[in-house]
Amino acid sequence: MKNHATPHIDKLVIIGVGLIGGSFALALRQAGVVQHITGIGRNLENMQRALEQGVIDEIADNYAAALIDADLLFLAMPVGQTELIMAQIAPHLEPDTIITDAGSTKQDVIISALKHLPPQNIINFVPGHPIAGTEQSGVTAAQANLYKGKHVVLTPLEQTNPATLEIVCQLWQACGAKISTMHADEHDQILAITSHLPHVLAFTMMRYLHHSTNNPDSLLRFAGSGFRDFTRIAGSSPEMWRDICLANREELLKQMEAYNTELKAVQTLLEQKDQEGLEQVFQQARAIRQTWHN
Amino acid sequence: MKNHATPHIDKLVIIGVGLIGGSFALALRQAGVVQHITGIGRNLENMQRALEQGVIDEIADNYAAALIDADLLFLAMPVGQTELIMAQIAPHLEPDTIITDAGSTKQDVIISALKHLPPQNIINFVPGHPIAGTEQSGVTAAQANLYKGKHVVLTPLEQTNPATLEIVCQLWQACGAKISTMHADEHDQILAITSHLPHVLAFTMMRYLHHSTNNPDSLLRFAGSGFRDFTRIAGSSPEMWRDICLANREELLKQMEAYNTELKAVQTLLEQKDQEGLEQVFQQARAIRQTWHN
Repeated sequence: MKNHATPHIDKLVIIGVGLIGGSFALALRQAGVVQHITGIGRNLENMQRALEQGVIDEIADNYAAALIDADLLFLAMPVGQTELIMAQIAPHLEPDTIITDAGSTKQDVIISALKHLPPQNIINFVPGHPIAGTEQSGVTAAQANLYKGKHVVLTPLEQTNPATLEIVCQLWQACGAKISTMHADEHDQILAITSHLPHVLAFTMMRYLHHSTNNPDSLLRFAGSGFRDFTRIAGSSPEMWRDICLANREELLKQMEAYNTELKAVQTLLEQKDQEGLEQVFQQARAIRQTWHN
Repeated sequence: MKNHATPHIDKLVIIGVGLIGGSFALALRQAGVVQHITGIGRNLENMQRALEQGVIDEIADNYAAALIDADLLFLAMPVGQTELIMAQIAPHLEPDTIITDAGSTKQDVIISALKHLPPQNIINFVPGHPIAGTEQSGVTAAQANLYKGKHVVLTPLEQTNPATLEIVCQLWQACGAKISTMHADEHDQILAITSHLPHVLAFTMMRYLHHSTNNPDSLLRFAGSGFRDFTRIAGSSPEMWRDICLANREELLKQMEAYNTELKAVQTLLEQKDQEGLEQVFQQARAIRQTWHN
């Protein structure tokens, strides 16, 4: 790998070439910073599509072959597979390979890494989370500009090599992303509120619909654009969200509990026909929503 | 008023010329079925804008003047003002004036109407609810195609004149809407689930953010498009939603309670680390979400 202002990657290896992995490949290719991309993943049909669409140059069928001479390894499989894959790749990692990931939770990924990766690889590991995506999944949803203008949070360890962190920053910047660094526990706490909790609430809303009628269509016919947007994230991958919820379980449970307390307070205002109280809640809510420019 | 396949309205009176009332005016004008539109409302700046934008032809400053020779009266003020306005218009209504409204709840509007309007006007009253709108409000947000392809629910009374119902149907169809008729209680139950509950959940989410940190911006910086869509409806009018929640209070409380039970069940699955159970919940949720074509 040559050392430029924007680094050049001769060989990028992506584990899990779906929306996130595929978009990273396309973005780096478009930025002209990557030479060769090797993909590896359990969904062969998806991998074949990634190859046909030119997202990757090659499909590897084992980690030993994939990881030879890798400059950069991008882990983009569902969070639930992290531990297994950390264990499987560990024996095949070269010391200079930079490792980063895209997991929606960070503490659990770090625990897996510390458990399975040798110290020489840990110093080149930069845990990361691009806050981008759609409810779609698979490589067909991948797009070169997915990360443009989006936030990427990096949660380096104490032992992370600063030069490695810098390179990962530059690569994400080459994808058009804005970089923040913070501690993994802070990341997991923030995301529990802004992402994991809303997903659980939206999934629960759709499930509730399922339970409240034999014929959800009869209700949905009268659902408007508000409902459509509110529940869009309930179209997300069940497997992925099962894994995220479990990976960030304690923090998410804490947030669900706290949200519930808040909801009970609104319920009490409504029970008491407290006009002023209700309006104040809605006003506070709207004020925050309106000051937010995403 | 001449009796055509699509009726022609010589004089339309709109009380509350905001997003809903203004869009109705624009749509009927575009369809060429209305001659003269008189607007009346408490926000004078908004009324002035409605006049300048050509949404209405005239501002009335009292109901007596406004309602002379009215063919159609469209009530599009916030639900909370319904009772007051029913009482105020009652003495000035002509027997032939068709009355319809756009309130998000229907039982309470009907109760107000029965309380204040003379029987001769009740037979020409068609309670309605166009399921359309955005989180914007005011006449500047009005648009001629707001109702195009959208559902309008009409909840006629037993004593509603069938010919009047037919005319209101035709007028909404002229706006491009799809019409359903049902009982008011059924309407309120459905909308509590598909609209009122999601609004309360979204408002509560934003309020929770307000309570969980001194600096919501620090959280919102890391909120993605999922959060943006989930909370879009929390940008809606606090006054309007206070009124809707209170107007449909009992049904909404029932739905909040039932949703809470559902949420607790998901929480229990997470507490028990029930992988399969969680995935099943998310799968059911996604399946319903994906079969819904809005």
